[in-house]
Amino acid sequence: MKLFDGGKAPNPRRVRVFLAEKGIDVPLVPVDMAAMEHRGDSVSSRNPLQRLPVLELDDGTILTESVAICRYFEELHPEPALFGTGALGKAQVEMWQRRMEINFMFCVAAAFRHVHPAMEGWEVPQIPQWGEANKPKALEFLHFLDGELSNREFVAGDSYTIADITGMIAVDFMKPARIVLPEDLTHVWRWYKAVTARPSAKA
Amino acid sequence: MKLFDGGKAPNPRRVRVFLAEKGIDVPLVPVDMAAMEHRGDSVSSRNPLQRLPVLELDDGTILTESVAICRYFEELHPEPALFGTGALGKAQVEMWQRRMEINFMFCVAAAFRHVHPAMEGWEVPQIPQWGEANKPKALEFLHFLDGELSNREFVAGDSYTIADITGMIAVDFMKPARIVLPEDLTHVWRWYKAVTARPSAKA
Repeated sequence: MKLFDGGKAPNPRRVRVFLAEKGIDVPLVPVDMAAMEHRGDSVSSRNPLQRLPVLELDDGTILTESVAICRYFEELHPEPALFGTGALGKAQVEMWQRRMEINFMFCVAAAFRHVHPAMEGWEVPQIPQWGEANKPKALEFLHFLDGELSNREFVAGDSYTIADITGMIAVDFMKPARIVLPEDLTHVWRWYKAVTARPSAKA
Repeated sequence: MKLFDGGKAPNPRRVRVFLAEKGIDVPLVPVDMAAMEHRGDSVSSRNPLQRLPVLELDDGTILTESVAICRYFEELHPEPALFGTGALGKAQVEMWQRRMEINFMFCVAAAFRHVHPAMEGWEVPQIPQWGEANKPKALEFLHFLDGELSNREFVAGDSYTIADITGMIAVDFMKPARIVLPEDLTHVWRWYKAVTARPSAKA
């Protein structure tokens, strides 16, 4: 088994943090995304969509999509449960994971990809107006999240889950997207400091 | 238990088709999205993000996000398995479900929301250039999917899954988004005719 990794990019990091929380070691194959290596033969032949990370099993089976790769390891190594437990618990983690992605991480990504000069050759066409339109959407979600985090320790409840991983990485991604986390979101700040203090955050 | 439903909109329909495939009856509370009822108190108090569908359990617990609601019912009623079976099978369904959503359905939705005149008050700001940029992305994905469907019956393998539901509804959503399914995508057409012929497609 080997994991084609993309360094600093948010999606590869989501899987690395997830594996660190699980205590699972998977051999990494570094792919230099800045040098566009993810569009080369090695990745394209495994994932025609040319996205990272890509997991290759020993029999050659390919898994892509970071959340799908995480779920594979969750099924193989259920503890600690990072996708929730029980029917309602699993559904609540899925709800929050998707809220953190669709209403927050994807907005931050759009702001980065459509505004940052370095992304001009990546995102074609780059539409700065669309990038800018996503910044207030991300902030609006963070205000909603702040109210939710006033009642509980983690995004989806009392336990750390994949929704916290997605959220932490989306907050970190705000820096290159040039979105500032407002100081008055005290509950988001408390949560963000707690999740980034975990050893897995360095993965 | 009751499901706040949104009629013709893609996400409410995803859950109704899923429930029909499972043979599960859930009382529906109709919400008229054309009349903006999803922004009224009844929905907003249950889902501050003002999106449908919303599932309310008998104890008042709220679940939102169509895929999270589907997963709740999958856990309660595992047969037929619409999220896959086994670690690898579940991961492969998740991979395809996400590919169908992120690389296809979301592109069709952007084309609809940012170009269609009726969406002007919904999507603020409406950015036609962004809507148009998504049409070739959706078509590019459909070409990739056509090659994949030359080898198997359904999107994620030999069984019908939630990835087929997402895909079918995204293809149907192409009509208001004014994207035409190319005639030469014979495998996509074969699959689309098969999934729309299932009784659940009418849900």
